Amino acid sequence: MRLNEKLGERKIIEIIQNRLDMMPKMPIPFGDDVSAYDIGNGNIAVLKTDMLVDKTDVPRGMSLWQAARKAVVMNVSDFAAKGVKPKVVLVSLGLPRKLTEKDIEEIGEGLNAGAREYDAYIIGGDTNEASNLVISISLFGTAKKNTLMLRSGAKPDDLVAVTGVFGKTAAGLKILVEGLETPKKIGKILVDSVLMPHARLKEGLVLSQTKAVSASIDSSDGLAWSLHEIAKASNVGFLINSLPTAKEVRRFARINELDPLELTLYGGEEYELVLTIKPKFWEKVEKAVERVGGKLLPIGKVTAEKQVLLEIDGKRSLIEPRGWEHFKNIKV
Amino acid sequence: MRLNEKLGERKIIEIIQNRLDMMPKMPIPFGDDVSAYDIGNGNIAVLKTDMLVDKTDVPRGMSLWQAARKAVVMNVSDFAAKGVKPKVVLVSLGLPRKLTEKDIEEIGEGLNAGAREYDAYIIGGDTNEASNLVISISLFGTAKKNTLMLRSGAKPDDLVAVTGVFGKTAAGLKILVEGLETPKKIGKILVDSVLMPHARLKEGLVLSQTKAVSASIDSSDGLAWSLHEIAKASNVGFLINSLPTAKEVRRFARINELDPLELTLYGGEEYELVLTIKPKFWEKVEKAVERVGGKLLPIGKVTAEKQVLLEIDGKRSLIEPRGWEHFKNIKV
Repeated sequence: MRLNEKLGERKIIEIIQNRLDMMPKMPIPFGDDVSAYDIGNGNIAVLKTDMLVDKTDVPRGMSLWQAARKAVVMNVSDFAAKGVKPKVVLVSLGLPRKLTEKDIEEIGEGLNAGAREYDAYIIGGDTNEASNLVISISLFGTAKKNTLMLRSGAKPDDLVAVTGVFGKTAAGLKILVEGLETPKKIGKILVDSVLMPHARLKEGLVLSQTKAVSASIDSSDGLAWSLHEIAKASNVGFLINSLPTAKEVRRFARINELDPLELTLYGGEEYELVLTIKPKFWEKVEKAVERVGGKLLPIGKVTAEKQVLLEIDGKRSLIEPRGWEHFKNIKV
Repeated sequence: MRLNEKLGERKIIEIIQNRLDMMPKMPIPFGDDVSAYDIGNGNIAVLKTDMLVDKTDVPRGMSLWQAARKAVVMNVSDFAAKGVKPKVVLVSLGLPRKLTEKDIEEIGEGLNAGAREYDAYIIGGDTNEASNLVISISLFGTAKKNTLMLRSGAKPDDLVAVTGVFGKTAAGLKILVEGLETPKKIGKILVDSVLMPHARLKEGLVLSQTKAVSASIDSSDGLAWSLHEIAKASNVGFLINSLPTAKEVRRFARINELDPLELTLYGGEEYELVLTIKPKFWEKVEKAVERVGGKLLPIGKVTAEKQVLLEIDGKRSLIEPRGWEHFKNIKV
């Protein structure tokens, strides 16, 4: 049985997890966006590692500087989703022989840019030879255990919100990879969303302070997948009644005869936060996010019934548990 | 200018470091075996990342289980050299498509074995598709800042010691990769040193407690290179008068007409500790290491003169600053 036929990323993770001895009293369970270790006095060390590989994570048109920066940003996004500030970054590089000194400089500058944008520092790492460009990033930070926003706390009737609009990266990738066309100005916005992603760290930090967020995840595997992940971890369902489609995506979809719903729900590589919020605190939370320059878009509510549903014009349909997944769904 | 012609691992690291903003008050400088972040009250978070790539780090004859275990052990060795206990491990995998479900199981079991041998747990990670098998490991632990054994504290007249004999991995690789021959029993010892490396964690932890170690490094880049690294970081030199060659290496060298000195000094992928020790504490330190089942072999002393010299039968020669280095010196 080969990976590309039968196994996907999630199956592989399951196989490996089943072979691991579990640490007693893990502060954060396997499968959440970050990992943690109890360092006493209610504090935890928060850790995250995620690898960027050129062949699956770097589309045509993305420079080495952008790829290196993205490798950091995609890890910061997971910290943002938990409400934890990353303090330091470690980098492990696999470098193809064909890279030049200038290429290496670009990678170094991109890594630094990604870390400094979020006020973190790169403090160590190593380099290796590899056939692919591989940028493996590790983040470290500390947090009060009781301020962490996990995937598992959503309750029926909580409100569902996101920190921004969706679909731009799915559209941007279609421009970069498949060569689809669109007016220049819109095209630039869509492509930039892929090349220059931003993590919602300010929003995540202020959200965790409100103590009103019952569950949180980043949307790097797509909006649909993120909803299903919270549903699974919290043992709930969703009724989504307002799709947060970017206006540029609507226009792009119209021009190219694509389904904007598909681009909105089943993309990936976008780094908004998907949150559930206790209803009585909604206004307080909304204001807190606005104070740091962000916004909160309500998209639906949590349900006791364990289905993830979309309701448009009174018509309900299932939101499928699919999205961007490495191996099964190569996009470049 | 291409990597394989002009750049080596150390040059690449230098290029990248020059592009990074430095964190103020780093508890451990760039270039030591591990990185650290001050978490207050005299405590530091200790972090390490190192990547194993099949094409340079996995010789013929090494199973996936062994490769995965080694990826963890080589990181633990750096913690050992600093006297820090690793608490948790994160794993980022790049997996070629050709791997089967059984291969993945082997990798999971090898990772777990490597962590549990040193009483650590794997608590998170991610998987990706890559052309090479890439196993990027991150370790986390905490330590009292003042017990850390850095590379930079060696003083003239300190004694130099190692935690075991050298040359077995260099010889073992010649058997595995070049097909050199040797009697079966010796061959197994030499090959096992490559396939099943062990980190000197017990020794490192007890050594840091003695407070008598002025500098420490692991020997993963070879004995000669390790001495030069301490010499550079501490601004001293060495006079080595007793080469710690394994007896199996002497025999292997005789049979294959090789220079045992070359195998002892300029190998790599071996995980002994190379230490400098304040002379008046020698006996105390030696006993402390013996109490945990280890041993300490004196091999020379630190000198004010900044050369790394070998003295055999009254004849002095320079120990060169070379050893195993990725890119420039591919061994498989």
